[in-house]
Amino acid sequence: MAPSAPPPPSPAAVPGLLAAAARYERALREDDLAVLDELFADGPATLRAEGGAALAGHAEISAFRATRGGAPPRAVRRVHVRALGPRDAVTVTETERRDGGSGLQTQVWHRGEQGWRITTAHVSGAPAPAPTGPPADGGPATWRVPPPADGPLVAGSGAGPLAGVRTAVKDLVAVAGQRVGAGVPGWLAAAPVETATAPALRALLDAGAQVNGLAQTDELAFSLLGTNAHYGTPPNPAAPGRTTGGSTSGPAAAVAAGSADLGLGTDTAGSLRVPGSFCGLLAWRPTHGAVDTAGVLPLAPSFDTVGLLAREAGVLHAAARVLLGGTTGGAAAPRALLRSATLTGLAEAPTALAVDAALAALSVQTGLPLLDLDDDFTPAEVTAWTAAFRTVQAAEAWAAHGSFVEGNPGALSAPVEGRFRAGAGVSAAAVDDARAVLRGVRQRLDAVLAQGWLGLPSTAAPAPAADASPAEQDRVRAATLALTSLASAAGVPALGLPWGRVGALPVGLCVLAPRGEDTALLGLLGQVVPGPAA
Amino acid sequence: MAPSAPPPPSPAAVPGLLAAAARYERALREDDLAVLDELFADGPATLRAEGGAALAGHAEISAFRATRGGAPPRAVRRVHVRALGPRDAVTVTETERRDGGSGLQTQVWHRGEQGWRITTAHVSGAPAPAPTGPPADGGPATWRVPPPADGPLVAGSGAGPLAGVRTAVKDLVAVAGQRVGAGVPGWLAAAPVETATAPALRALLDAGAQVNGLAQTDELAFSLLGTNAHYGTPPNPAAPGRTTGGSTSGPAAAVAAGSADLGLGTDTAGSLRVPGSFCGLLAWRPTHGAVDTAGVLPLAPSFDTVGLLAREAGVLHAAARVLLGGTTGGAAAPRALLRSATLTGLAEAPTALAVDAALAALSVQTGLPLLDLDDDFTPAEVTAWTAAFRTVQAAEAWAAHGSFVEGNPGALSAPVEGRFRAGAGVSAAAVDDARAVLRGVRQRLDAVLAQGWLGLPSTAAPAPAADASPAEQDRVRAATLALTSLASAAGVPALGLPWGRVGALPVGLCVLAPRGEDTALLGLLGQVVPGPAA
Repeated sequence: MAPSAPPPPSPAAVPGLLAAAARYERALREDDLAVLDELFADGPATLRAEGGAALAGHAEISAFRATRGGAPPRAVRRVHVRALGPRDAVTVTETERRDGGSGLQTQVWHRGEQGWRITTAHVSGAPAPAPTGPPADGGPATWRVPPPADGPLVAGSGAGPLAGVRTAVKDLVAVAGQRVGAGVPGWLAAAPVETATAPALRALLDAGAQVNGLAQTDELAFSLLGTNAHYGTPPNPAAPGRTTGGSTSGPAAAVAAGSADLGLGTDTAGSLRVPGSFCGLLAWRPTHGAVDTAGVLPLAPSFDTVGLLAREAGVLHAAARVLLGGTTGGAAAPRALLRSATLTGLAEAPTALAVDAALAALSVQTGLPLLDLDDDFTPAEVTAWTAAFRTVQAAEAWAAHGSFVEGNPGALSAPVEGRFRAGAGVSAAAVDDARAVLRGVRQRLDAVLAQGWLGLPSTAAPAPAADASPAEQDRVRAATLALTSLASAAGVPALGLPWGRVGALPVGLCVLAPRGEDTALLGLLGQVVPGPAA
Repeated sequence: MAPSAPPPPSPAAVPGLLAAAARYERALREDDLAVLDELFADGPATLRAEGGAALAGHAEISAFRATRGGAPPRAVRRVHVRALGPRDAVTVTETERRDGGSGLQTQVWHRGEQGWRITTAHVSGAPAPAPTGPPADGGPATWRVPPPADGPLVAGSGAGPLAGVRTAVKDLVAVAGQRVGAGVPGWLAAAPVETATAPALRALLDAGAQVNGLAQTDELAFSLLGTNAHYGTPPNPAAPGRTTGGSTSGPAAAVAAGSADLGLGTDTAGSLRVPGSFCGLLAWRPTHGAVDTAGVLPLAPSFDTVGLLAREAGVLHAAARVLLGGTTGGAAAPRALLRSATLTGLAEAPTALAVDAALAALSVQTGLPLLDLDDDFTPAEVTAWTAAFRTVQAAEAWAAHGSFVEGNPGALSAPVEGRFRAGAGVSAAAVDDARAVLRGVRQRLDAVLAQGWLGLPSTAAPAPAADASPAEQDRVRAATLALTSLASAAGVPALGLPWGRVGALPVGLCVLAPRGEDTALLGLLGQVVPGPAA
């Protein structure tokens, strides 16, 4: 957070530019030469550079394109928009091909009487990175019950839409024949062997998935950082030397390392969205109540959800549909993507720009217009909902686990125990007041989401270093909680898309949809994969 | 020529931009991280895209550069400058590495209080094109006496700075033991076997070069097109289906095809500069009188010169120094490169832009400032010198060859015969008037070249199609003659640099230096080769 820096410019602030870029992208997909020709400025000065040389002039460029026979299918991952003035702008677009190769496309645009036209373009590509050996998935820091050498820990039905999907299950979820460890050895020691599998996991198994291991969590899920004083910090395969974020830390490490395909976890205050952001994974927090939380250790039931992490859009989509049971919401597309300058400004400047680039890319890829919120949230609103959320969460967490905390001194690390104990002193009146604030937030966000889906940073920064100071960790956690607690407070679904980049570090774009519109929101996943191979 | 189109913008018209680009290039060459950091705009919004991804923010970019350990050495071939306003501009730079690989670099610049800074950069490269088999060099259309299978046609001393340099000799130059064919079978039939080799060629042979064949010329060198009604049109290896230009057509085809390293030819009205431009070759027309023309068939002695074509800068430089005998001019660098909007505007718009890009590249590569001429030539001046040059050339050509034309009806093709016959009717008074005009041109150009070296298009367009209509050929020839006749009229040296590109077609940048400054002008050749391999 650098509150004194000027806010980053919005990619939505250049009227019509992203719409023109989306039109270009669609024409490229369809090899619509007429539109591509139209979008390049007429005349001899227009440039297009690729490979060994630049072509000059609309005629040369058009002739080149006519003989090319279309561009390889691709998905737009980031569109960096830089306004140069009311009539001039630059876009730098990063794309991904189905084979893992990537593309870069710089376009200089000028807005004339006919609208935005490309005056200079530079296109280049890079092959898929060479495959490396599988990264270490962290051993005991990642897995409380590691994948057995001789097959899955729990076999599923073996058939169905999730056949063969290896699932890392957060160690808060009941698995028949296993105990729940909850990231706390003192909890595990007293935990019974479960006799029934949690319904959410049961549904995944019935759809063909398998459980390959039980993965670690922050202590009783009451953290966002991915550190664990007892079991160690799982490594982040997407950002070596940094944390995974939490509390769904173990599933995130396992999925990012490729030793699982799907992570089943929980999200109360961001516990799926944060590790998704830090580890470069897709993350889905469902509408509150849309997925059965039975058999899953609670933290703060007003906000608790059971959701998913995955590397691949198809896996996440299929698993989410299984959890939703086909019952939640339609597939109505939104009218627009919305951006909040206030929420974006809660992130560090490089993260804000990275998330803006991912949001602009989503607009270009889907063709949905990107609009800056007219009725933006005020900093006072953010402060109010964050405080109210913390109050209710702390009170409910104490209600859920206060007796364990009281009865097992020293079982929790000091910071987590302190977080629980903060809930002990919250008065009923304070909770009532906080719930009233949250009802207001819910109404406020409903009104915003009636205008379109809201995109915001999943986290305020990329993953902190694993050895970051407590002060640094608290700073990232506090700034991130201001962002994540909005969806938690309002109970709306959130989809974390992992395509922001700060240097080599992933950082997520979080898209919020109206309560119950999970199916439509998940429909985005079909649009963010590269097109079929040509 | 599209006289109604607005003139292309000048790359010199954005004050300080090329100087900043030159500073950047020098810093890149020297891996001067402080200057590179300085030239990238500060702050988190600055972008640098390469390979698979874009880096955002000055800090990220600086960190990347510090670990890179310098960029591969390269020469700047074209800098396309596009002004977006007084404070914003784009450059697209094409570079060449020593290994034949190429680079593209798009930079968006903003001029703030500190000067021009890069706000967005996109860098990509391409490997050297795969070697292909040697292109056909045209057989009898290229060679009047082809290279013998068992060794050179004429061996040189075998030692010296040109050892092993295979030279295609234009069939106007006396070679002991051979006849001069002059592109006209009827001339060849009556030509004696030469008993002495022309002194210019003798010097090359003494320096180690060898003659591998006698190469074709336009009829009696009185054309610029490279067509020959008797022997056919040599193929242009650099532009398939197009002419080589002339009259040094055969040497150009041979050198461009790689079947010779050096072309020895003549330039009266552009006969080296034009094929250099059309075939992508370096071309040197010396100061009038600086290289001995003895033993070379004259066309118009007031303008006739003997000069060179080559693919490689080192070969041209070494051979030119041999021809100059170390006696002509110093090596004083010019103060600036000059651009004439009038002369540039004589070329077709795509050619003008291509030559501007090569001229801007020369400025960036050498660090010489590029200035638009304040006291530019007027269209009336161009018309006057072109007409005066034609008058004197025609009169002298008739004086040289009128008796052959009269005595050998039908020996020449109708267009060339017509050109000679036009000289028959020129009065002595008209010649005197024309010579007076040319003296004025000479003074005028001397004053310009005292300010710096002048860059202009070598030709008005790239090579025409080999089957272009006579009208199209005449159009290109007339527009080109207006450009080439300036150096011819003034007797100044001209260096043709082949790095303009209209699509895939080469087109030359011609640099004029003060009379006698050949050595300094040739010094440019040392600056336009890629740096030594890292």
